[in-house]
Amino acid sequence: MKRGFGSDNHSGISPEILQAIAAANVDHALAYGDDEWCARTEALFREHFGPQAKVYFVFNGTGANVLNIDAMCRSHHAVVCAETAHINVDECGAPQRVVGCRLLTVDTPDGKLTPQLVKTRLHGFGFEHHSQPRAISITQSTELGTLYTLDEIRALANLAHSYNMFLHMDGARLANAAVALGCSFKEMTTDLGVDCLSFGGTKNGMLMGESVVILNPALDVDMKYRRKQMTQLCSKMRFVAAQFEAYLTTGLWRRNAEHSNRMAQLLNAELSILNSPKLKVMYPVQVNSVFVQLPADVWHALQQEYFFYDWDEAANVVRWMCSFDTTEADIHNFVAALKALL
Amino acid sequence: MKRGFGSDNHSGISPEILQAIAAANVDHALAYGDDEWCARTEALFREHFGPQAKVYFVFNGTGANVLNIDAMCRSHHAVVCAETAHINVDECGAPQRVVGCRLLTVDTPDGKLTPQLVKTRLHGFGFEHHSQPRAISITQSTELGTLYTLDEIRALANLAHSYNMFLHMDGARLANAAVALGCSFKEMTTDLGVDCLSFGGTKNGMLMGESVVILNPALDVDMKYRRKQMTQLCSKMRFVAAQFEAYLTTGLWRRNAEHSNRMAQLLNAELSILNSPKLKVMYPVQVNSVFVQLPADVWHALQQEYFFYDWDEAANVVRWMCSFDTTEADIHNFVAALKALL
Amino acid sequence: MKRGFGSDNHSGISPEILQAIAAANVDHALAYGDDEWCARTEALFREHFGPQAKVYFVFNGTGANVLNIDAMCRSHHAVVCAETAHINVDECGAPQRVVGCRLLTVDTPDGKLTPQLVKTRLHGFGFEHHSQPRAISITQSTELGTLYTLDEIRALANLAHSYNMFLHMDGARLANAAVALGCSFKEMTTDLGVDCLSFGGTKNGMLMGESVVILNPALDVDMKYRRKQMTQLCSKMRFVAAQFEAYLTTGLWRRNAEHSNRMAQLLNAELSILNSPKLKVMYPVQVNSVFVQLPADVWHALQQEYFFYDWDEAANVVRWMCSFDTTEADIHNFVAALKALL
Amino acid sequence: MKRGFGSDNHSGISPEILQAIAAANVDHALAYGDDEWCARTEALFREHFGPQAKVYFVFNGTGANVLNIDAMCRSHHAVVCAETAHINVDECGAPQRVVGCRLLTVDTPDGKLTPQLVKTRLHGFGFEHHSQPRAISITQSTELGTLYTLDEIRALANLAHSYNMFLHMDGARLANAAVALGCSFKEMTTDLGVDCLSFGGTKNGMLMGESVVILNPALDVDMKYRRKQMTQLCSKMRFVAAQFEAYLTTGLWRRNAEHSNRMAQLLNAELSILNSPKLKVMYPVQVNSVFVQLPADVWHALQQEYFFYDWDEAANVVRWMCSFDTTEADIHNFVAALKALL
Repeated sequence: MKRGFGSDNHSGISPEILQAIAAANVDHALAYGDDEWCARTEALFREHFGPQAKVYFVFNGTGANVLNIDAMCRSHHAVVCAETAHINVDECGAPQRVVGCRLLTVDTPDGKLTPQLVKTRLHGFGFEHHSQPRAISITQSTELGTLYTLDEIRALANLAHSYNMFLHMDGARLANAAVALGCSFKEMTTDLGVDCLSFGGTKNGMLMGESVVILNPALDVDMKYRRKQMTQLCSKMRFVAAQFEAYLTTGLWRRNAEHSNRMAQLLNAELSILNSPKLKVMYPVQVNSVFVQLPADVWHALQQEYFFYDWDEAANVVRWMCSFDTTEADIHNFVAALKALL
Repeated sequence: MKRGFGSDNHSGISPEILQAIAAANVDHALAYGDDEWCARTEALFREHFGPQAKVYFVFNGTGANVLNIDAMCRSHHAVVCAETAHINVDECGAPQRVVGCRLLTVDTPDGKLTPQLVKTRLHGFGFEHHSQPRAISITQSTELGTLYTLDEIRALANLAHSYNMFLHMDGARLANAAVALGCSFKEMTTDLGVDCLSFGGTKNGMLMGESVVILNPALDVDMKYRRKQMTQLCSKMRFVAAQFEAYLTTGLWRRNAEHSNRMAQLLNAELSILNSPKLKVMYPVQVNSVFVQLPADVWHALQQEYFFYDWDEAANVVRWMCSFDTTEADIHNFVAALKALL
Repeated sequence: MKRGFGSDNHSGISPEILQAIAAANVDHALAYGDDEWCARTEALFREHFGPQAKVYFVFNGTGANVLNIDAMCRSHHAVVCAETAHINVDECGAPQRVVGCRLLTVDTPDGKLTPQLVKTRLHGFGFEHHSQPRAISITQSTELGTLYTLDEIRALANLAHSYNMFLHMDGARLANAAVALGCSFKEMTTDLGVDCLSFGGTKNGMLMGESVVILNPALDVDMKYRRKQMTQLCSKMRFVAAQFEAYLTTGLWRRNAEHSNRMAQLLNAELSILNSPKLKVMYPVQVNSVFVQLPADVWHALQQEYFFYDWDEAANVVRWMCSFDTTEADIHNFVAALKALL
Repeated sequence: MKRGFGSDNHSGISPEILQAIAAANVDHALAYGDDEWCARTEALFREHFGPQAKVYFVFNGTGANVLNIDAMCRSHHAVVCAETAHINVDECGAPQRVVGCRLLTVDTPDGKLTPQLVKTRLHGFGFEHHSQPRAISITQSTELGTLYTLDEIRALANLAHSYNMFLHMDGARLANAAVALGCSFKEMTTDLGVDCLSFGGTKNGMLMGESVVILNPALDVDMKYRRKQMTQLCSKMRFVAAQFEAYLTTGLWRRNAEHSNRMAQLLNAELSILNSPKLKVMYPVQVNSVFVQLPADVWHALQQEYFFYDWDEAANVVRWMCSFDTTEADIHNFVAALKALL
């Protein structure tokens, strides 16, 4: 299938990652994480997130998010999140099934929670008929391609802590956020009071591998049993750790994220040059996605050539996602195809 | 870590597998299974298991087993299995948490259920105070390195069906069983009435990848939602399918399994040559593991050189497991080390 | 505590109910529903709901609602309901914990779903990342004291069935609805296509006892095991059945509901007579509750004398609920106290 | 149905209990436990179990047991219990569904755990593949009508605590045990180190009502939310509390238990007088049940006249249970009927 704009997980594997896997393929290693690759990579996570950070490798983003929720909540608790949050709309109810808790959702203009919006769900504390709010979950960068500023994250962390709650960050695209904001991972998480993090690599060039990073040691309770019991324990874990090791030590996370962000900027710029009244870019283009409203017949026709998702079919909004392997030529060809349809 | 006898998942990845992953690393592919590798590999599974077979790729054996149980059971059902079954002792209660059902365990002399043993748990049908027996689960080859004959499997399938129950096979080491019995996968499963199967590759040379194979179409209901909701849906699934494709088309499954079985035979033979009254091989060596009873001080000393698991500490029984990359020299060195300690 | 307007479960037990319990207190009876009282009362339910109706007695409304949801859904399914639905806001997440499914909520002006509102949540069918809409749940009468007309219910049933979904009715106050609409239970449920029902008695004069009524036989699968496993099986069930028998055969359900509805009408009329610009009745008074917006200092002061719940503290809306034992004098005293505070 | 020996929940309600319900049927009371009856009865529990005891009223024994397990365990934990324990065989898998944990069962000669038996399941601590033993659960008096001595309970409590585990007691028939041992409730629970208790009344003359009694304050965390979320919160709770109040203040618990125990002794004595080689009383008759092995044709014929349960059909063992309303004449008639069949 030719390169398109369907999703950043339609792309393959960065060569550095494949190479790291091959390099780790020597002799025997203990399974389930007791190996030298895991040990080295866990140390790397402490470098990137602070000395108290504890990482648990998992298979995928759903696993990372659900394990984090399980660390924060029991079933009578609730997580406040945006209506558009991946944990709300794209996990097929995994938090409900595996943890048994409620999600308290908030409509947002741009995928971002604010303290004011969160507070609308913070009531009923101590009332046994209501699920007890226990966590706030934000996505950085958001499902709509927008970014929280550091101050905005800090404000949400402070709010959470003032209610004896926790702040979770879904960082499936954390690298894209970090390069866009020009900050380190730690500056965007630990330093602001984020309690736990889903840190992804798959959408940014890895083969397969995500992680739960516990930043608040109070949450680091029985995590290994939870991971195992929810089916997320990998046997040959050295091959997940080796990917993260290459990802973090070679600068790959940064290179790939910078590239896909830059491609989205190029796409946005090219759309702007089209200057068509039929096109409307819906949100600020801050990372690697562009959400566009355009006539149904146009995007239907364009889908004949390129696979991409409608985001809101009723509103004729579609999502175009750039990847680490998107080329400038890809953008130009795509925009040319679009132009021909307008 | 030098090669040892701790587990068949201490070994790495067969070169054919790495090559297949690299070969699949081209262009873009739809995520979550809608790609050409998955399509081709699904067809391969139909060749190997019959035209009605439906495969669902998952991350690991726990995921495969729990998804199969979820296909057969609701929470008020029960699965009859051996006390030693992996689903009973080595999943940290994943079936209980994710499916919510009971396991009805049976003590066995050799890890194998028989119709007579199973019948001791088949009562209380229609009695609402009791979990309703709904499935029998067997492991082929078993956790104790023993094998069910084809007739034994057929008898259990017939028993299950006569009670309106299903037969699940945990085939984490199915390849080892097939080469030992000299039969095809289909002859050992579909043809005998097995309803669903966990078919593994990780322990036999793959990087990471297991599968649920639904053989009885009546069980193929809503499987894709269950897989997703229990956190087992892989995004870049082509790289799992590509591994299975190589595994099944290059004969790798057979070569690796034959080799590890042969190494276990060699180990068994060498132990026999030692002719020590202190050693007792506990079960027939039929696939790639050897369970040995020996004095505590001996196996403790041997563990200084080689990592392996005590299987039953109280009884001084340990497990030695051969792998696709075990060499004859490994065996000789290990036995020599053992001999020196006796 | 003096009689007030806090809740219809602040009242006690109708004498007919206590008498029925005493009358059933003879000799021995089989436990768990195999007794003559249950047999007779099950027949009564068939009279009231049609010959296919199957009743399962449970302890409370939460149990009834969760058991109905479990009959309709597996964990990867979703139930569409009003944001204000009891199953959404007042069960502390019981559906999520016990069934593991999602609720898809809709904001409504008056607690009532409409086909148009429901349709906003009916998408993503066949998409494994999304919980699959499987049921619509409505409350009759609603949590806001409003009523669905028979046509409105039929329209929702038709919508549900056209999507291969089910319609559940939470009838914790079904008697109040029936007398308000002047129809039989069957005319309001079975005849319109309601698939399953939570039918309550506790809020209308019973000691303790609710029921699940399966109207669509396709849903009557393994119900007794589900009831038991979710902890809702009563041992001395004759005493629950005997209550429902008295409730249904003596006309008690009608008398009590007519009375409490009439008291709410009286309260509404008296509030109207006050003619205060500070008071606003929020919804049509159709059954036994009155929702009123009034200044915070007034309702806070009134709460010194009478216990009642704020419904929406931010909006200064409170709920006043009439019961089967509310007297006209209670209303006059309450309104007098209110008047003195205005 | 004439009085028989099927179960102690086949009997009805003690007059004192009905009277207490009627007496509580005055005016209004807050729902869900915030009423004067609950307040008084909670104080009574503190008198009976010590000042730190915290009681949570629930509907039934399943609810009490599951709520206690939920207080002690998360889903990756395990409860050690006898194979014959009610939580294992008679809850249709409720602990697995609602808590998600494992039960580790032990075969016992007489329904009683011993430290030695429990220790066979205490391994795998810290090993993530194994559910972590977290609680021991015993039934007093046991499902086989046997009793733990105070020393035996203390030994199990000490064992539990030495492993950082908890001891739960299922006291569905605690009153029968207390009168048999001639001790107070506190001497049999709190004083020995029992951490939490299911304390039942239904089998000993109450209409409906059981309780969770948390004796170890460390377990008293979020209990009200758990009770609500697992569907066990009663609205008109004053009527449950009033039953327990009468039960505990009028000496009813003692009178009823003494009577049913005495009737079992009489039955046992009469069986002994029969002096038939065809009859074998299986366990010491210590409370209100007698387990008898006798020829299949005899007990089948006797069931034509009297309802009772086979306990172990294969072994021809049946259970005869005496109740608070069993009369001496009942015993004599029953034994006469049996004699005629021998």
